[in-house]
Amino acid sequence: MCIVLNLKRSVAILGCAGYSGQETLDRVLVHPELEVLALGSNSLAGRGASALDPRLNGSLPSFVSNDEAAASGADVFFLCLDNEAAAAFEPPADTVVVDLSGAHRLVDDELARGWYGTAPGAWSYGLPELFPADGLLIANPGCYATAALLALAPLAHVATGPVVVDGKSGVSGAGRTLKQSSHAGSVLENVSPYAVGEHRHAPEIAQQLGFPICFVPHLLPVRRGLLATCYLHTDADVRSLLEQAYAGSAVVRVLPEGVTPELARVQGTDAAEIGVFADAATGTAIVICAIDNLGKGAAGQAVQNANLALGLDETAGLRLTGILV
Amino acid sequence: MCIVLNLKRSVAILGCAGYSGQETLDRVLVHPELEVLALGSNSLAGRGASALDPRLNGSLPSFVSNDEAAASGADVFFLCLDNEAAAAFEPPADTVVVDLSGAHRLVDDELARGWYGTAPGAWSYGLPELFPADGLLIANPGCYATAALLALAPLAHVATGPVVVDGKSGVSGAGRTLKQSSHAGSVLENVSPYAVGEHRHAPEIAQQLGFPICFVPHLLPVRRGLLATCYLHTDADVRSLLEQAYAGSAVVRVLPEGVTPELARVQGTDAAEIGVFADAATGTAIVICAIDNLGKGAAGQAVQNANLALGLDETAGLRLTGILV
Amino acid sequence: MCIVLNLKRSVAILGCAGYSGQETLDRVLVHPELEVLALGSNSLAGRGASALDPRLNGSLPSFVSNDEAAASGADVFFLCLDNEAAAAFEPPADTVVVDLSGAHRLVDDELARGWYGTAPGAWSYGLPELFPADGLLIANPGCYATAALLALAPLAHVATGPVVVDGKSGVSGAGRTLKQSSHAGSVLENVSPYAVGEHRHAPEIAQQLGFPICFVPHLLPVRRGLLATCYLHTDADVRSLLEQAYAGSAVVRVLPEGVTPELARVQGTDAAEIGVFADAATGTAIVICAIDNLGKGAAGQAVQNANLALGLDETAGLRLTGILV
Amino acid sequence: MCIVLNLKRSVAILGCAGYSGQETLDRVLVHPELEVLALGSNSLAGRGASALDPRLNGSLPSFVSNDEAAASGADVFFLCLDNEAAAAFEPPADTVVVDLSGAHRLVDDELARGWYGTAPGAWSYGLPELFPADGLLIANPGCYATAALLALAPLAHVATGPVVVDGKSGVSGAGRTLKQSSHAGSVLENVSPYAVGEHRHAPEIAQQLGFPICFVPHLLPVRRGLLATCYLHTDADVRSLLEQAYAGSAVVRVLPEGVTPELARVQGTDAAEIGVFADAATGTAIVICAIDNLGKGAAGQAVQNANLALGLDETAGLRLTGILV
Repeated sequence: MCIVLNLKRSVAILGCAGYSGQETLDRVLVHPELEVLALGSNSLAGRGASALDPRLNGSLPSFVSNDEAAASGADVFFLCLDNEAAAAFEPPADTVVVDLSGAHRLVDDELARGWYGTAPGAWSYGLPELFPADGLLIANPGCYATAALLALAPLAHVATGPVVVDGKSGVSGAGRTLKQSSHAGSVLENVSPYAVGEHRHAPEIAQQLGFPICFVPHLLPVRRGLLATCYLHTDADVRSLLEQAYAGSAVVRVLPEGVTPELARVQGTDAAEIGVFADAATGTAIVICAIDNLGKGAAGQAVQNANLALGLDETAGLRLTGILV
Repeated sequence: MCIVLNLKRSVAILGCAGYSGQETLDRVLVHPELEVLALGSNSLAGRGASALDPRLNGSLPSFVSNDEAAASGADVFFLCLDNEAAAAFEPPADTVVVDLSGAHRLVDDELARGWYGTAPGAWSYGLPELFPADGLLIANPGCYATAALLALAPLAHVATGPVVVDGKSGVSGAGRTLKQSSHAGSVLENVSPYAVGEHRHAPEIAQQLGFPICFVPHLLPVRRGLLATCYLHTDADVRSLLEQAYAGSAVVRVLPEGVTPELARVQGTDAAEIGVFADAATGTAIVICAIDNLGKGAAGQAVQNANLALGLDETAGLRLTGILV
Repeated sequence: MCIVLNLKRSVAILGCAGYSGQETLDRVLVHPELEVLALGSNSLAGRGASALDPRLNGSLPSFVSNDEAAASGADVFFLCLDNEAAAAFEPPADTVVVDLSGAHRLVDDELARGWYGTAPGAWSYGLPELFPADGLLIANPGCYATAALLALAPLAHVATGPVVVDGKSGVSGAGRTLKQSSHAGSVLENVSPYAVGEHRHAPEIAQQLGFPICFVPHLLPVRRGLLATCYLHTDADVRSLLEQAYAGSAVVRVLPEGVTPELARVQGTDAAEIGVFADAATGTAIVICAIDNLGKGAAGQAVQNANLALGLDETAGLRLTGILV
Repeated sequence: MCIVLNLKRSVAILGCAGYSGQETLDRVLVHPELEVLALGSNSLAGRGASALDPRLNGSLPSFVSNDEAAASGADVFFLCLDNEAAAAFEPPADTVVVDLSGAHRLVDDELARGWYGTAPGAWSYGLPELFPADGLLIANPGCYATAALLALAPLAHVATGPVVVDGKSGVSGAGRTLKQSSHAGSVLENVSPYAVGEHRHAPEIAQQLGFPICFVPHLLPVRRGLLATCYLHTDADVRSLLEQAYAGSAVVRVLPEGVTPELARVQGTDAAEIGVFADAATGTAIVICAIDNLGKGAAGQAVQNANLALGLDETAGLRLTGILV
């Protein structure tokens, strides 16, 4: 007699029709240990999976409302919702929940209310290479915060003086929701600084570093990809500290001297690239981190966090190779 | 009896087939006091003006070699050449020569040789709103330097601590010469930091400010337009100082509080926009300047400099309005 | 005693906050014979002109509602409204009204109702080089229709067999209204055929040519500019017919043999370029027309139509030169 | 005793530093039955694999000259060379050689000489879904030809009258070689028709269809992806014929009614999408095919052809899923 057990963990994705939901689905579809149980989307509820992409077919369940997906009894939940909806989600017992919104990132309730209008309580912040989560409820980092922290966290204890993070992101970082700033007429042949000195990823970065940084994000005319150019002062050996921090990582690459990060090498992947430079005239260390805002900056990291919480191979389902040109 | 005098000054453009040469021609064509005498281009020599653009016709002279254009006896010369060729140009007596290359910008010969491989001697640096040239031989500022100085020069005396300039430029800033980094396959869906901590506009900015800054340029997937995001510390009233500096300018606009510069509003023009912001968490002043790298960053400023040297209306031939969308 | 007469005609622009309204304003601002009386916009009503663009200042009236602008008593009205609102506009007596929407283009009421959902009656179709309007109420052609007709109308009487128009337009052709297809995430690194065989410019082109054509529009990842690649069969000398048709035109250029139209040469202008080619293998004539969809394809042509109706210089206020790179 | 046999076939890629070479390598790296034996590149010879991409490491051989790679004794050769170099390659006996250039595509020697300047003799044309190759020496189709033939070949026997193919390609289709038309300044905010009525993929398409078509290619401001909009006349049921042709294909998808092909769904993959439409006014069938010019249009199809020649799973190493956004 032979009993075949299906040991895959079941997944529900809430907010599956947005960019980060769609990308999370894309990773779950190739994940050897995960399988889709429920696809939540209030806008697509009742329609087949092919409503999202004609390549998705009958082997997937139809879309249900986010409330129904929340009640699906899945083993793992990915919350690809806006902050308010994510804050209102009530986690079932003994399940892994990864929140890709900002609702559960800030530990300080007052700060959370100020930036997000809600303070449902912080979950365990999960940036695996630096701050591995330690519970079942995981706050997935923001895309800018991921890039800035990958560049700066290993240097936080040696930085002296003010730190500047100049961020540049592709338009998918702003989500699929319609707004004038994401209209192609506003994006093409343009680069737009926005939320100057007022972006909510700044307090998130500060929380993890232990000190504030000055952060200005810019919207680029690219579909996906994010670059954080970080400026700091230190007497320490920056390259050595970063190479140590990511020596064993399959996800984060510290590039050889003189090589600059390239969006093309991280787009469509869950990897990160870090380039290390120095400005001799001013003694400034320049650390540049490139990620795909939807990969390591969102869905890829969410799956990575779920893998760790479930005791699976950290990189299962992740895209870490390919697309050379 | 009636004598009609042609009082227009005659112009020779050397290196007219490159981006800055072509844009200089475009301004001279609509200039009420200038007229084209010679179009120099070693690659187009012998061909009609329409070889550059089918809209240019028989009323313009055919292209000649740059040497021939140099010997044309023009009243005004625009050098749109590479640094070496510009360094080798011997200015005729009593003529206005505006050098758009970097050859004559750096006062320190050793620095010049280090960055440009040649030290033909500095000419009068001409950034009209800040450093008006005072002779006939004028070094036209670099595009990044123009944007950074417009943002920072009025604040130089009040800045404390390190200053960061994060530059972003459209690809025309790298010229029409073929190179892998300007290949569309390298530019599209990408943003590339380059010459990190090693760009030759850094010593130019330092020379004019009186202290070094940390400068990282990035190549954007846009055809034209440049943004300099500048970070500094000061106790002074940044907005007030900048508004005073440009109060009478028809070229430089300090934007109202909360308004960010837009490439779309300066592309194809010779105007500059400056946005002023503050980061409360770190006490950093953020000043962002947008220009068209080929306008205020090159050809527009060159014509502005020539106007001043010739005693003409400063903005004659410049593009300061239009193109709202 | 001295009486100073202001002979400028007063202009009201309805729907001024959209792309075509903004571009119309941009041309009126430099027009020697027109002046702004009223700026209508239901979304900006009550706000100053600088709400649209910080460069617009106190010399312009504040925005009023479109109804108020309609009642302003202007000499000339530009309707930059959606089809429904344009259809509902009641033209004051003895005024020039140029409708940039599609509401008054189709002569056949049933056709109009089918394509536009309304049939307020056709106005005089005004494509100056081919079909000059003959009254005060003018239907300004669609952008695709303008390009296709410039390429095909001079050949209509000699065409044999089916005609194909493959259109490609920048995203501003779809207007500033928010929709998923204009979201930068849908536009960047993409080219989207849409309304395949079902675009409402097809019956407009057919109406003016006298026979139907097969038309497929594609959305390009560019901000502005439109190309119509037209395929037809004929025994006639295509180049000669087109050169004759536009021999005296300051707006339409038939390019020399072997030269292809370039968006870069028409973007930001009101000019059109036509390239003429032949496919030897199949005996097909290929005529390619490039315009700026917001220039000759909308606002530029609207001002050109108004100029003719007012007895002014046809090209007053138009942009026909400049921007070489 | 246990003998472990390495049954993988060894691969040599000639011209590995170009786009198609790099993409071929990318597929071989994940191929379960192929392994890299030699990386040929005259420009990178002597350097490590990481010279092409910092992600490639010591497990790969260093680059050698193309001549050395040709003499490597590999089981499979991919020729990612220019036409002349590919024509000069002498295939070793009993090896599979896939030529990604155009050198061996045209059966008619005179035609080959006219279009390619050389006539080394045609190899077996390999477009697996339509024209599977039947020998070891395989001519891999051109990118435009692939898209046009996927759309038209199943309809060739029912087409009446002239056929138009309006092609649009991303810039990587023109290769990594530096030329003015691939300079980002020429590509951004532009769409360029080129080789109008004179592109060498036209005779290739005609050869496979049995009749000439009128073909105009256009260069798009996108990095990768190609669209062929095809216009034909027929009384047959176009959709039904196409669905039959690709019923069993894992590579080519005929989209449901009303769904248009999207570059985003094929970029970075080796799949093809076909949309089927009709223009009622003129009775034209419109068939639109989207591929990645570097995937199904080059490297993906080359590996697919090699798989078939080697008796392997047709889709081994191919990218057929993923990248939803």
